[in-house]
Amino acid sequence: MSKRFNFVGRDIISIKDFSREEIDYILKIAEAMEPLAKIGSDMLKGKILATLFFEPSTRTRLSFEMAMHKLGGSTIGFANAEVASIKKGENLADTIRTVENYADVIALRHPLEGAARLAAEFAEIPIINAGSGAEEHPTQALLDLYTMLKEKGTIDGLSVALMGDLRYGRTVHSLAYALSLYDVRRLYLISPELLRMRKEVLEAIKGKVEVVEKTSLEDVIHDLDVLYVTRIQRERFPDPAEYVKVKGSYKVDLNVLKKAEEGLIILHPLPRTEELPAEVDATPYARYFQQVWNGVVVRMALLSLILGAVE
Amino acid sequence: MSKRFNFVGRDIISIKDFSREEIDYILKIAEAMEPLAKIGSDMLKGKILATLFFEPSTRTRLSFEMAMHKLGGSTIGFANAEVASIKKGENLADTIRTVENYADVIALRHPLEGAARLAAEFAEIPIINAGSGAEEHPTQALLDLYTMLKEKGTIDGLSVALMGDLRYGRTVHSLAYALSLYDVRRLYLISPELLRMRKEVLEAIKGKVEVVEKTSLEDVIHDLDVLYVTRIQRERFPDPAEYVKVKGSYKVDLNVLKKAEEGLIILHPLPRTEELPAEVDATPYARYFQQVWNGVVVRMALLSLILGAVE
Amino acid sequence: MSKRFNFVGRDIISIKDFSREEIDYILKIAEAMEPLAKIGSDMLKGKILATLFFEPSTRTRLSFEMAMHKLGGSTIGFANAEVASIKKGENLADTIRTVENYADVIALRHPLEGAARLAAEFAEIPIINAGSGAEEHPTQALLDLYTMLKEKGTIDGLSVALMGDLRYGRTVHSLAYALSLYDVRRLYLISPELLRMRKEVLEAIKGKVEVVEKTSLEDVIHDLDVLYVTRIQRERFPDPAEYVKVKGSYKVDLNVLKKAEEGLIILHPLPRTEELPAEVDATPYARYFQQVWNGVVVRMALLSLILGAVE
Repeated sequence: MSKRFNFVGRDIISIKDFSREEIDYILKIAEAMEPLAKIGSDMLKGKILATLFFEPSTRTRLSFEMAMHKLGGSTIGFANAEVASIKKGENLADTIRTVENYADVIALRHPLEGAARLAAEFAEIPIINAGSGAEEHPTQALLDLYTMLKEKGTIDGLSVALMGDLRYGRTVHSLAYALSLYDVRRLYLISPELLRMRKEVLEAIKGKVEVVEKTSLEDVIHDLDVLYVTRIQRERFPDPAEYVKVKGSYKVDLNVLKKAEEGLIILHPLPRTEELPAEVDATPYARYFQQVWNGVVVRMALLSLILGAVE
Repeated sequence: MSKRFNFVGRDIISIKDFSREEIDYILKIAEAMEPLAKIGSDMLKGKILATLFFEPSTRTRLSFEMAMHKLGGSTIGFANAEVASIKKGENLADTIRTVENYADVIALRHPLEGAARLAAEFAEIPIINAGSGAEEHPTQALLDLYTMLKEKGTIDGLSVALMGDLRYGRTVHSLAYALSLYDVRRLYLISPELLRMRKEVLEAIKGKVEVVEKTSLEDVIHDLDVLYVTRIQRERFPDPAEYVKVKGSYKVDLNVLKKAEEGLIILHPLPRTEELPAEVDATPYARYFQQVWNGVVVRMALLSLILGAVE
Repeated sequence: MSKRFNFVGRDIISIKDFSREEIDYILKIAEAMEPLAKIGSDMLKGKILATLFFEPSTRTRLSFEMAMHKLGGSTIGFANAEVASIKKGENLADTIRTVENYADVIALRHPLEGAARLAAEFAEIPIINAGSGAEEHPTQALLDLYTMLKEKGTIDGLSVALMGDLRYGRTVHSLAYALSLYDVRRLYLISPELLRMRKEVLEAIKGKVEVVEKTSLEDVIHDLDVLYVTRIQRERFPDPAEYVKVKGSYKVDLNVLKKAEEGLIILHPLPRTEELPAEVDATPYARYFQQVWNGVVVRMALLSLILGAVE
């Protein structure tokens, strides 16, 4: 008999707050949401999701809103800090203690690390971290895991590379924590020296998964089941010449893909720029637009679990 | 047998347009909305509220939107003037005559005094004034009254102080008019000389309620049942030194609260800044976050009354 | 027995993609939507419309959103490019391939010509062109036709004038194409020399309708059943003096209307500025605010047809 979990009223702040069993359960509910994401349902009728986005993110905001609408609920909120009361000098704690009166659950995107955790301390309704600073983006990690599971049938045993900006990219932090809960065969971390994975993340996953840090994709692509690509931003480099020098090593194009294994899948949290050119879209490796859809069903699972519409 | 009121199709422009009996009736309906604000209803299914906010106000806009969603209706609109057609030079009358085709009721926030009244003259659907210039904010006054009634059991007999910027604060204007309809024991108006209550408001409430103007809270706090605090903005003072000199007298902190009566409640329309420090939140006096919730049920009452879903 | 049309899954990019029979059918469905636009329906329950507005347009956006809500569906989206991912450098193709996972249909407003067509090539869900550059605005043309049909009982046989900026005004381009499918008696094109109708449009409608180009309204107003007025923007003239010289000839005021036929109707896509002063609103000719309502039922017809809720 399977273990029972209780997600009702729970905050979704960090992927680190979840056990492997809990994540597996969320992914199972996500799968059950697939048909409802197409036809809609009344599971959350009368419920309201507030999307409070203190920095713009079309993708994540619309994904949450679609998830809520397809569950029969409603959404309110704001899409950037310009329209919010913070223009009048209100602090986050007051904004949260206000908005918790208007909604049954809040999805919060904020430029500062720790913002989601702070919000959860003040709120009596559940808070979902929709990205806080360069720190974490737990719902993205869940949809990444769901994509691997759906495409490869398993997460255990996979050889996964996270590539690009591993220092400031919040999605790779959450994903690295999440993968360390599984028996992945190997976790490659591919980045320029300047943008290596944060020490705190390396510490946390040490001993749980075999980590190999690299500065070039070419050496390891033959050994990958999953290549997770992220943007490298020019502004991260004090010297622009340095950026120009390294950026070629983190570009996934048809040339480097010649060395790929047949079953490789390429993921990307999007939006992408030159690191993943459009020529890759038509290859059998591309799965980044499927990720977008998967984000909806994962968020439907989370919303229905924490609002008690699913056990 | 109780008197019957007809709110169907009615504009909510000024609190002065309402009799005490009408206000009491709205507050009674608001109370009946409390459970529906939690579980939702289908009372306004198929109806649309347009929230036209020509200046940003997260709080009021989200409050109206939640109210509409919990009644089963939908919302459309804009959150600031930037996205509106006024960028193409359209006047308010044309905007209203356009949007009245898209909605069943309009909530309008506008920086100019008289804007809501003008809109109501052009529109064939009901207009709710969600704040116009420094003039009035009638739904805020109704939720303030509702909070007093809910917390103190009565409005008659209360000793109420309005404190802060009484000259430019639209909420205190509407609330002063509203309180003059009740037998309040005393109405203290506490403000710096420069920000005294407008003459037109004083004229209108004269003789209906005992008004005492003060420049300091400390002298009167022992006599208060309700302390209504508002922000004082630095920009109102031609001389910044003058602001620094007076601001301490309008700050509600634990020190001044030592002289408070046990049953005192503190209200604030929010957002707050330094006039109401966070240390007050944990005292038994604080009711300003309860006000936020009360705003939802009051707006549910108004929407359902003017759209004919409640008699 | 009437011919059957299949609109399911179809893009609405250009009015040129439609036959007269198809347009007549859309207008017939629009008429059937009139009562539902008042009371609402559940025809598109569980369906989502994404309104992606890369330039602001309150009118068109709210019209689409009302249409979707009155059909029982939901909406998501953004009201200007500021909040969208394009700030992070995302191209339109990627935005579309993302958002198509979040919605059942997309209404796209974009400053560039060809944007809607490009979007339709990438998307697997239907795209509705809600205005692309100075090129086309097909749903506006449909609502213009619907207004003529509703107000005059027929489109065939009418004498119609399009006046104002015929070079950059996207609504007049779409409308000219549309009118060329009907047996209009005469199509007057009234504009300053600098803002004459584009050659490509003239080429396309040549031989299908009698076109008369004019530089003044006064000469022809006595011969008109429909006067379609559009804004002339000062910025179009290299020499401001030139603008001041001509603008009077394209102003519709009570004076020029003295020469109008009794049955004349005046249309305008709105927003208007000085070319159509408020004094005209009270004349029996004004129909431009009725157009706004007609836009809703036409868009309800399109949404329900392409999403398969109506055959």
